[in-house]
Parts: sequence; structure tokens; C-alpha cells
Amino acid sequence: MSLSGLHRIAGQARAAAATRFHGIDAATQTPLEPAYPEATSEEIHSALCEAADAFEVLAATDGQARTTLLEAIAREIEILGDALLARAHAETGLPLARLTGERGRTCAQLRLFAQVAREGSWVDARIDPALPQRQPLPRPDLRRMLQPIGPVVVFGASNFPLAFSVAGGDTASALATGNPVVVKAHPAHPGTSELVADAVDRAVAACGLPAGTFSLLHGREPRTGLALVRHPETCAVGFTGSHAAGRALFDAAATRPRPIPVFAEMSSLNPVFVLDGALTSRGPAIAEGLKQSFTLGVGQFCTKPGIVVGVASPAWDAFAARLGELARAVPAGVMLHAGIARAFAEATADLRDVEWLSQGPAAAARVTAARFLEDAALQREIFGPFTLLVTVPNAAGLTSFARALDGQLTATVHGDPDDLRTPTTSDLLRLLGQRAGRIVLNGFPTGVEVSPAMQHGGPYPSTTDTRFTSVGTAALARFVRPVCFQDFPDSLRPPALQDANPLGLLRLVNGAPTRAAVGDN
Amino acid sequence: MSLSGLHRIAGQARAAAATRFHGIDAATQTPLEPAYPEATSEEIHSALCEAADAFEVLAATDGQARTTLLEAIAREIEILGDALLARAHAETGLPLARLTGERGRTCAQLRLFAQVAREGSWVDARIDPALPQRQPLPRPDLRRMLQPIGPVVVFGASNFPLAFSVAGGDTASALATGNPVVVKAHPAHPGTSELVADAVDRAVAACGLPAGTFSLLHGREPRTGLALVRHPETCAVGFTGSHAAGRALFDAAATRPRPIPVFAEMSSLNPVFVLDGALTSRGPAIAEGLKQSFTLGVGQFCTKPGIVVGVASPAWDAFAARLGELARAVPAGVMLHAGIARAFAEATADLRDVEWLSQGPAAAARVTAARFLEDAALQREIFGPFTLLVTVPNAAGLTSFARALDGQLTATVHGDPDDLRTPTTSDLLRLLGQRAGRIVLNGFPTGVEVSPAMQHGGPYPSTTDTRFTSVGTAALARFVRPVCFQDFPDSLRPPALQDANPLGLLRLVNGAPTRAAVGDN
Repeated sequence: MSLSGLHRIAGQARAAAATRFHGIDAATQTPLEPAYPEATSEEIHSALCEAADAFEVLAATDGQARTTLLEAIAREIEILGDALLARAHAETGLPLARLTGERGRTCAQLRLFAQVAREGSWVDARIDPALPQRQPLPRPDLRRMLQPIGPVVVFGASNFPLAFSVAGGDTASALATGNPVVVKAHPAHPGTSELVADAVDRAVAACGLPAGTFSLLHGREPRTGLALVRHPETCAVGFTGSHAAGRALFDAAATRPRPIPVFAEMSSLNPVFVLDGALTSRGPAIAEGLKQSFTLGVGQFCTKPGIVVGVASPAWDAFAARLGELARAVPAGVMLHAGIARAFAEATADLRDVEWLSQGPAAAARVTAARFLEDAALQREIFGPFTLLVTVPNAAGLTSFARALDGQLTATVHGDPDDLRTPTTSDLLRLLGQRAGRIVLNGFPTGVEVSPAMQHGGPYPSTTDTRFTSVGTAALARFVRPVCFQDFPDSLRPPALQDANPLGLLRLVNGAPTRAAVGDN
Repeated sequence: MSLSGLHRIAGQARAAAATRFHGIDAATQTPLEPAYPEATSEEIHSALCEAADAFEVLAATDGQARTTLLEAIAREIEILGDALLARAHAETGLPLARLTGERGRTCAQLRLFAQVAREGSWVDARIDPALPQRQPLPRPDLRRMLQPIGPVVVFGASNFPLAFSVAGGDTASALATGNPVVVKAHPAHPGTSELVADAVDRAVAACGLPAGTFSLLHGREPRTGLALVRHPETCAVGFTGSHAAGRALFDAAATRPRPIPVFAEMSSLNPVFVLDGALTSRGPAIAEGLKQSFTLGVGQFCTKPGIVVGVASPAWDAFAARLGELARAVPAGVMLHAGIARAFAEATADLRDVEWLSQGPAAAARVTAARFLEDAALQREIFGPFTLLVTVPNAAGLTSFARALDGQLTATVHGDPDDLRTPTTSDLLRLLGQRAGRIVLNGFPTGVEVSPAMQHGGPYPSTTDTRFTSVGTAALARFVRPVCFQDFPDSLRPPALQDANPLGLLRLVNGAPTRAAVGDN
């Protein structure tokens, strides 16, 4: 499978750039061919204008057309076969088994979103039929549904080169709802990105959709990403990455003449609270699960448990010792790219006044809650295989610590039945519900299910928009907006809003959910 | 009914201000007693800290408690009786009949939202039961629902002193979903605001809820509004008013260390397109309807039709002449306050190179589309009884004009059956669907129904967040966020997510809507 080292702009392989960069073999740190170009302003403009033109066609497609596209993309990705996995393995250092699983997840996600597009009820159709006899004024006929918004810019994430990248959840969400997509490839896996972009292009062409439905641009300069966000045709942004980058994109979007939404999933400590009963009855098992969770994927998950909170006690000391022992036995892993490896080394080296439990490739340390709360360096997410135990003096300290926490993607509590019955735990769970998007009981936060009930997104700074999720079928809600049609004749209404309910949707008629047709009125 | 001229901070009548201002009788332009204080930083801080404390209690209330509160507020407002209407009439100049209707709408809205809170399905409960046998990995039990977010700051609007003010749609939306509210009273109707705040306080007390559930602060300085938006405890903002003020609040929210959502409904031209067939068959009737719509409430509605677009023809000339004739016969009305009256006079006086159709109290003019598109002064919303006819050279000009439009709350098309069958109209409707939140066929945009299918909100600059509505039951979605509970035992789950479905909600179980209980798993 040959790589061109070019952008894909509305189906065309192009590049005008003077500056180029290479993907790097994560294991050997040697450059991989070919070199990839930094997108120019003209190329960004071209991709977004093509996307805007494609939107006129794409917005008018029905659920079946979008389903066909998503399923075709999944098939084309599978057809890429081992070449895709080999390139992704070289560029990211992720093991082939993990990448095989991630490819399965990516294709399953495309097919799940295809099902949701086909079923169609996501449009949230609402119908208030006319009440011509109402006094003092008649009510008009009002029918409301969700519609696509326009070109979506997606930033590929480094840590999921398939599932959160070119044809990942953001792209699938945008296409499922009728929006064209311009992807900014993550510069750490440009070759993987090109292969997947080719697959998407083939699917778009096979479906007879405009080529501008999808473009892929390369670049590693912050200005390239900012220019994509600032382009007048850009209508929304999906991003997964660091807080600094996410906030910069958010700020750029908010200061546009016409602000646009940015769904940035950024940084999270994913606190784990270990209650006394659980500590006593199954401390070693929790330590083992925690070790697996914080070192999974070399600690490069946004849901990695970054802090573990417990009450000072001999059992807590034993837990810390056991975790340190387990961590010291973890072998070194290959990190995604040199930038992450360097940032990890620097951040762990910067920690002051901590009790080190393991300083091996997988690192763990312990501090008091008081120390934690006074030192900003301890409160930062450290991306990689590190976790920090935080000791609170007593059970009340658990809730006061929870109260001091910033917004989180997840929060976890380990507790035995007796632990869970106490008012303190009930307070703790309530507080965590205000600070996190997902609360895990007696489990670990890594492993994010792609399903209707998943919530992957929490209060700032874990994301820029806590009202939405970037994983699961509810992720579709990010790239749509409601439109109400007043007094339209049935022939001019979108099918989702027609009297006969030709799509068989679940609709809200006079405020009550039903799949029934609307009677003449 | 005596007025104190004080803030209401968590049930306490207080004011420390050195600076005070008066409400002004809109008809006579004389000051009304008492004077009202400009909120100090300490008062703002106090109201928001009380709100944050109240949130801990309020978030835990069930739907019935919120229903009871909203219904009590409606009752207390009704008990205020004619004194409320008299004060609102004095402060706003709005006729008593209109205010009586608006009070009815306000109370009906509170009761409708109370019903939605009681029914409870707005929490969008989603349940993916555990799949312990799934390969390669078991699926955990995932249950997701919407929860309140925290203190909401609501800015009262001048043009609906009841329905979009202290106990209007924003406050009702926030309370229905369990969020405390801090209202910044509109300085043009401080007395009306105080009366309604007293009613809300009585309802809060009668329901045994914390006094911090609701506060009312006065002020007319921009810095007061900005300080409310910037306060760390503020979690969201609802606003209806000018573009300049709305954008300033949006910018303040976006540049906070922790950005928060701002739902600002700002400015809209609400274009009306009159197609040839309709012009010929019922031009005079459309002119009459248009005159009523653009002069309703002295033109002070956010859905006032500000531009009317037609194709050059003798029928269009006759329509313009007829509209001018009707407009010239409209008597002068009392505007809401001197600021609006002055801005209206200045904006209409500033218009250059227009053909005046009426320069009476109700003003109408005509320009070509080319002239309109080159002059920013013509493209601005002019709040008050003014509308601008825009002539396009031919049918294709209708769509190219629509394409050039900014985001709008509404767009309207008048067309006879033959008009509506043409490809041009179909293009026009499609384009308007991309530019407006509500598309009206053969009607007028004023008159915004409070119902499940209403969409009051369109692309920027008509609002800052086109994904939401500020009118109708969907308005509740603004002040909530999803939280997912993983592997919780039934006893610790919120009732909405418990197996037995004790609240009888419509829930998504494994992606399919049902009111059935979830079987043991």
C-alpha cells in the first residue's frame, strides 16, 4: 500500500507546502517515509469551501444514504487489512493486538451510528398540530426536528489512531447527521491517517456523494489548527488532546465574529476513592486492578486513574506498598511519540515532596491531601503510566477533598456494602455527580463503552462543553440544531415531520411520545 | 402594595449601594418611586454563594417538589393582582390588555414546565444493562440521565416584563430542572421585578426550599451584569436583549478560567419573502398582516419582521404603496423606555438612500437588494415599528438574497400553491432552514407559541447558541448535563434509573424507548 505524503482535499491528493515533516517510528525514533506537508491557508480554504458546497447536498440526504456511507467506510477500513495495522503500529508504538481491537471498535462504532442514522428517531421530531379553534388565538401547526449544521473540523487524537482519529467518533457523529468533515490529521500518525482517508474517500465516491464531504489535511503547527477553527465556513469543532491545545481552539472559536461550538475533551485526573471496608476486604485486588488501569496503553488514556484517594490507616499504607510493588514490576512500554514521552519524564521529575512508591517505567507516589491541594504541579494531569495516592486524614476528608476537585471525565468509588450505606458515601457520590461525567462503582474508569448510555465528557477542564458526550450514540447531538416548520403543507414537510410518519419514528405529538400518524387537523 | 427599593438576596431585602436609579413612567417620562440600588460586588457574591448552597438541596429534589414550586410561583403571581399590572404598565407603557395576556402566558408557562417536571422524562434516562458474558470483555451496567448544573444567572428582558423577566421562561427552565436562579432585574422595570421577586420568594418559602434558590439584584451598569457572569459560582446565563450586550456577556463567559454557556437571544431581521403568486392573489391581505405584525407591541418583539423581500414588478410596487398607506395610518405608541425610543429615532434617521413609504410613527421604506447588501446600517435590526422592503430583480434573486443573510430567529415565506411548487421556492426554503430557527409559511413570525415543538433560537447573531431554544418545553435542556452511573446497585441509583422504573418514565433501554422495568441482569 503506497503512501503519497499529500493532503486529501475533496478527493484530490494535493500539497503546496514548502515545509514538511515525517511520522516517526515510535519504537526506534527514526523517521518514516514519506514526508507530510503543512497545510497552507489556500488548502484550508479549499477544503472548507468544498465542504460547504458538499453540505448543500449532504444535508438533503436521508438516513439510508448516511447509513450506507458509514457502513461503506467501515468496510473500506477493513479492506485496508494488515497494512493499516502495521503502519499504525510503527507510528504509535501501540501493540498490534490493541490496534486490531481498536480497528474493531472503530468499525463497530461506524456501524452502530449507521443504525442510529437508519432508525432516524435521533432527529427528536416534535409535532404540535394546529388548533384553529383555540381561544383567544388559534395555534399554528408547529413541527420541529434536528438538522445538520455544516462543515465540522475534527482533530485526530494521538492516543487512538483509529477510534478517535480520521474515521473515529467525531467523524462518524458528523457524517451520521449529514455534516461534511475536514480532518486535521494528528502529526504523530500521518500515514495511518492517509490510509484511512483513502478508505473514506472511496466510500464517499462509491456512495455518489460530493467529494467535498470529506477532506484530510496535515500539519503540526498550532497556527494550522487555529486557521481551521477560524475559517468562516467551519461550523463546529471536535478535538481530543491536551488542555493547552483544547483551550486555544476554544478561545479561537469564541472570538470569531460568529462563534462556533468546540467539543474539546482535554484533561482529567479521574479520581478513584477507596473506602475503608473495601480496602480491608479486597485491598490487594483493588491494587491489582488499579495497576492494570493506570498502566493500560502505557497510561495514555484520557480516563486513566491519575489520583487515588484513601483515609490514613495501616490498611492504606499496605495498599500503597502493594501498589508500589506491582508498579515496579511493570515493564517499560513504548509511548505514542517523543513529545508525550518527554512531557511524562519532565512532569514526573518535577514532582516535589512526594513519597515515591515506584520510580520505574510505571510510576506511583503518595502525598497528603493538604500537600496535593497546595501544589498545582500535583493537580495537573500527567499523561502516561503514573498515579498519585492522596491520603486524607479521616472519612470527612473524602468529601472535602471531592469538593475541592475540578471537573472530571470520571470518578470512581470502591466500597463494600457497609461503606456504601454511610451518609458520608452518599455525600461523596452526590458531590462526584456534580464534578464528573461518569461515576464508576467498584470498577475502573478505563474502558469506555460505545453505547447509548455512555457519557464521556464532564465539567471543565475535562471538556469545554459538559452538556455533550464524545463517545456513544448521544455524541450525534453535538453537530445538529433544531428547526421548526410552522404551517407547512404536508408535501413540503421533511419526511420526519409528515402526518403519516413515513419513517416510523418515535415522535413527540402534543408532548406525548408516539409512533402513530398525526390525524387530519 | 408597597415597594422597598431593595434587592432580594436569598429572601432578604438588602441594599448597600451608594448609587441608585429610578424606574421611569414610560408614558410621561417621569421617575417612579422608589429608587433602586446598583448591586455591589459583595451583594453579587452573596447571592451566588447562597445559590450555590441552595443547589446542594435543590439538586436533590424530585420532580414533584419542582412542580409544586413552579405552580406556587404562578399562584403567587396571580395573587399580586392588578397592582402588578398597574406597575408594569407604568414602567413599560405596555397596554393593560397586553400585560394581562402576558401574565396569563407567564403563569401558563410556569404550569406547563411544572407538568414537564412532574412527568419527568426530560431527564432522557438511558440504560444499557450489564452484559457479563460478552466476549472479549463484559459490558458494565451503564445508566445515564440529565442533571441540573448549578446557579443560573437570568437577565430580565425589557420587552416582556413578565414572560421574559423575573419569573419568565429562563427562570422557569432553570427551576424546573433543579437549578437556583439569580435574576438581574431589567432597569426599565425594577418595581415590576420586585413584585414578582416577592411572589417567587413566598413560593420558595412555602415549599420549604432554601431561600438561596432565588435572588433578585438590581443594576443598570454593564459592569454589574459582567460581574454576575464572571462570578465563579455562576454555571450558566440566560439573556434576551441587544446584540452588543449579549455578545459582551458571551465574551465574558468565554474568557472565564472555567467557561460557561450563555444563552443570549439577541437580534434578528426575521425576513419575510413574498412570492409572485401570493402577491397577485392576496397582496393587500399580506400587507395588512405585515402591518399588524411589524407594529405589534410598537414593533418591540424579537420576531418583528424587519425586512420584506419581493421581486420587482408592478404588483410589488402596489404592495409597497399599500403597506406605506397602512403604516401611515398607525397611531403613535408608547415605547418601552427612552433608550429604545432614542435608538429607534436615531436608527431610522440614519438610513440613507431609501425610498420612504411611511415616515409616521410606524415607518416603512424600500431599497434594492444590491443597496441593502452594501450598507451595514440597513442590515442592522431596528427595534421598533419599522420594516424595510427589499426588492430583488428576479426570482433567482430571492435565493441569492437568502444566501447572503445572517442567522435569524425566524424566516417567513408567503406563497400560493403554484409558487410553492417551483424549484426556486424549494431552494429558498432549504436555504432559510439553514439560516433560521423557525420557518413560517403564509403567516407572520410574531406570536411565539410556548409548546413542545417551538424553536425560538437560530444561528448567530440571532442567538449565541443555535442548538437550544429559549421558548417552549425544550428550553429546559439549556440548564442540564448528562451523568452516567456505572455498576451502581439499584439502591444507590437515582429513581429515574432504577430497574423498576418507579417514576414511569419513557427510557431508552439498550437503545430502544420503553416504559417497562429493566429485568434482573
